[in-house]
Amino acid sequence: MIRTKLQQLFDEFWHIDQITTVIPLLKKMPVIEVSELLLRIDEGHQLHILSGFTPKQQGAIVSDFPLARQLALFRSAGVKRFALIFENMPSESRADMFPRLTPEEQTALLPFLSKTVRENVIRLSAYPPETAGGIMSTDFATIQQSMTCAEAMAKIRSDAPSKRTVYYIYVVDEEQKMQGFVTLKDLIMAAPSSLVRHMLHQEFVFAYADEDREKVAQKIEKYDLVAIPVLNRENRLAGIVTHDEAIDIIRVEQTEDMEKFMGIVPDKNELDYIATSSWKHFKKRAVWIISLAVFGIISGLIIHGYENVLKNFLILALYMPMVADTGGNSGSQAATVVVRAMALGQVSVKDWLKILWKEARISLLLAVCLGILAFLKVLFLSWETPIPELYSLSRIAFAIALALSIQVITATIIGAGLPLLVKRFGGDPAVAASPAITTIVDITGLLIYFGITTLFFTL
Amino acid sequence: MIRTKLQQLFDEFWHIDQITTVIPLLKKMPVIEVSELLLRIDEGHQLHILSGFTPKQQGAIVSDFPLARQLALFRSAGVKRFALIFENMPSESRADMFPRLTPEEQTALLPFLSKTVRENVIRLSAYPPETAGGIMSTDFATIQQSMTCAEAMAKIRSDAPSKRTVYYIYVVDEEQKMQGFVTLKDLIMAAPSSLVRHMLHQEFVFAYADEDREKVAQKIEKYDLVAIPVLNRENRLAGIVTHDEAIDIIRVEQTEDMEKFMGIVPDKNELDYIATSSWKHFKKRAVWIISLAVFGIISGLIIHGYENVLKNFLILALYMPMVADTGGNSGSQAATVVVRAMALGQVSVKDWLKILWKEARISLLLAVCLGILAFLKVLFLSWETPIPELYSLSRIAFAIALALSIQVITATIIGAGLPLLVKRFGGDPAVAASPAITTIVDITGLLIYFGITTLFFTL
Repeated sequence: MIRTKLQQLFDEFWHIDQITTVIPLLKKMPVIEVSELLLRIDEGHQLHILSGFTPKQQGAIVSDFPLARQLALFRSAGVKRFALIFENMPSESRADMFPRLTPEEQTALLPFLSKTVRENVIRLSAYPPETAGGIMSTDFATIQQSMTCAEAMAKIRSDAPSKRTVYYIYVVDEEQKMQGFVTLKDLIMAAPSSLVRHMLHQEFVFAYADEDREKVAQKIEKYDLVAIPVLNRENRLAGIVTHDEAIDIIRVEQTEDMEKFMGIVPDKNELDYIATSSWKHFKKRAVWIISLAVFGIISGLIIHGYENVLKNFLILALYMPMVADTGGNSGSQAATVVVRAMALGQVSVKDWLKILWKEARISLLLAVCLGILAFLKVLFLSWETPIPELYSLSRIAFAIALALSIQVITATIIGAGLPLLVKRFGGDPAVAASPAITTIVDITGLLIYFGITTLFFTL
Repeated sequence: MIRTKLQQLFDEFWHIDQITTVIPLLKKMPVIEVSELLLRIDEGHQLHILSGFTPKQQGAIVSDFPLARQLALFRSAGVKRFALIFENMPSESRADMFPRLTPEEQTALLPFLSKTVRENVIRLSAYPPETAGGIMSTDFATIQQSMTCAEAMAKIRSDAPSKRTVYYIYVVDEEQKMQGFVTLKDLIMAAPSSLVRHMLHQEFVFAYADEDREKVAQKIEKYDLVAIPVLNRENRLAGIVTHDEAIDIIRVEQTEDMEKFMGIVPDKNELDYIATSSWKHFKKRAVWIISLAVFGIISGLIIHGYENVLKNFLILALYMPMVADTGGNSGSQAATVVVRAMALGQVSVKDWLKILWKEARISLLLAVCLGILAFLKVLFLSWETPIPELYSLSRIAFAIALALSIQVITATIIGAGLPLLVKRFGGDPAVAASPAITTIVDITGLLIYFGITTLFFTL
């Protein structure tokens, strides 16, 4: 395959001048693949190869670099050389990169850009990165409703090379206020003399520029859109967000949820795992881990409350970790299942009773299995452990197993209920972090454990 | 807003005949919203309202129902009535639903379908649901390379109403072998007399029908495609998968990964959280939870090995849960971060040394914080706990804190390393499940804990 041969060529000969001979081959490849090949080599050679492409192609290729590599290329190429690339990057890529330059770099770059691009960059960079404004493209196609279908097609043909997509065309008035849209499919199906006014869709899905980007992605997902228009608060069309952007947002947001679930503070401005310093990583994780350690004092107090019991029944101390672990696992599993069902839209907060009842039944089955296993474990492991007179090992084993079973049921219900509770009060259920659940069920678990076993021993 | 008023109307008057008066209003709404409204009412009334729409609209609306509700509607409407809807559902929706009917229902339905649809359903249903074939649509637009641009446009105009998308048009020969594609944008930009042969893209991204659906979604994501062609092994064009399908796949697969991470066995055929029985849920979760309980015997053996130490130093037993918890949390956090960085393509297995070194440094910072906290905790909680003569509380506290710190570092490195190891051997890193990590770091943690503390007490 041409592609694997090219990769080999790259890996062997990229430092030799011959590499420029592959440029005609590279030009046949999709832009994303050219980017991937260039990322294997250093900035100096990247520039050498990029010079073989048109400015527009250079902009497209570099826009597919990860942010850290774009910055590296900028710093290696110098402002003047990079300005040519930057000018030709898609509007949303420019708006992503520009705020990450130092103020000195920004000031140095701006004079080298055309007036239109300069204004565009400054305007787009002003939007917070997590909003529709922060991710939108300003390269959208517009027509007026007074046009005929033929006039509209002519305008689209002439505009098309510089537009993000021409499959949805937005109908605006002279103030850029959005009146509706037509699809390219609509236009090719209509008679050339028919008016846009008669075929435009007046009811349309849109997003406001200050809306959260995750909501924008959800709208694109729900309505199966190729692109969604972004309006400012005066209902002027400010930009569009396309379907491929939606996928990127969903990826990033979902993995962030996974981190939130594990008690890692999300950092929306982070570059990348490797690029982020150890200190920054530490800060993100320290918050939760330290809070948990602090909360662990409560568990500690409970254990100390039962010190005397433990002195006499050392065997109980031996099984505390087992109770802690099983509770944590059961609770986290239940939470994961519920968070998932909510994320997929299969259940909502008002189904809470159904959910808790179901989880109670599932946990009963799990509790029976784990209780039996625990009973056998105690008998097997502790047949030599000294126990006070008057008590048989099997009685103690039964008490421990019973405590464990009840712990599993309560931990599961707590694990399932916590995301629902958080969501009920407007929070993000993924923040019902696994560490939080582990801590809570530790506390309840210890109370159950000591409660049940001491009950047995005073009977 | 029209939509909220309609929702109110629905919730109040859906059982009254007046509801059919809202049908003209419903017809102006996007299909997905009509589906959502109909899902609030029972099947009998759904059918009543659906009858006010054209057959094609009925098919589109019902195709947006969740599978469980489609089946409910089928069973309520009866074969003959539902066949009209089914015939008009998009090809991929029919192929999703058909295999979930009982064999009797399938046999009853087929005679009511047109020959084309019948063959299409049988053919598409034969693909495993997790493959490109199982999710593709057969409603794609084709042209021949001998056509002129004008002839191609004429064919597209005539085909368009029944096609999933006309934004990508596939060029095939008389054997349906794919030669390339053109976009609708290409066609409108070209002169009407130019030949398709001269403008078609011969290098194209595609998927084979037996490819995993997640790979298909990743290709759509990587190349920002509106649709990807699906070929069978003779290179004949069999179907297409569109961008909206890619988003759905990514959602489902990512939440499945989250469950895998928590030790829940994924069930690709599951209907839905509520619809799945408690017994099925139990089976999915039991595997892991019970394996962990079994593995927990190793921890149990270690604890019993140190029984005598614990008898003399009860204080050590009191802090075992703290060591277990902190280890589990640190390890799971590290694993989450690494799994995420791999999923986002920021690191790969060959970066393992960089990753482990970084995690070691991060864990050192965490270990210092947690060690200090643990030292203070022991002093605070155990100032009254009986300890053997010759030992001061602060010495014991220091030993415990040191053991905890080392546990945090090892647990973090293990947590970070496990996904890398799993990926190195071709597995899915998300299966480096949080429960597995908790179990392993329990074992290492206990060895470290007892190792360090006994070392202190024999010095």
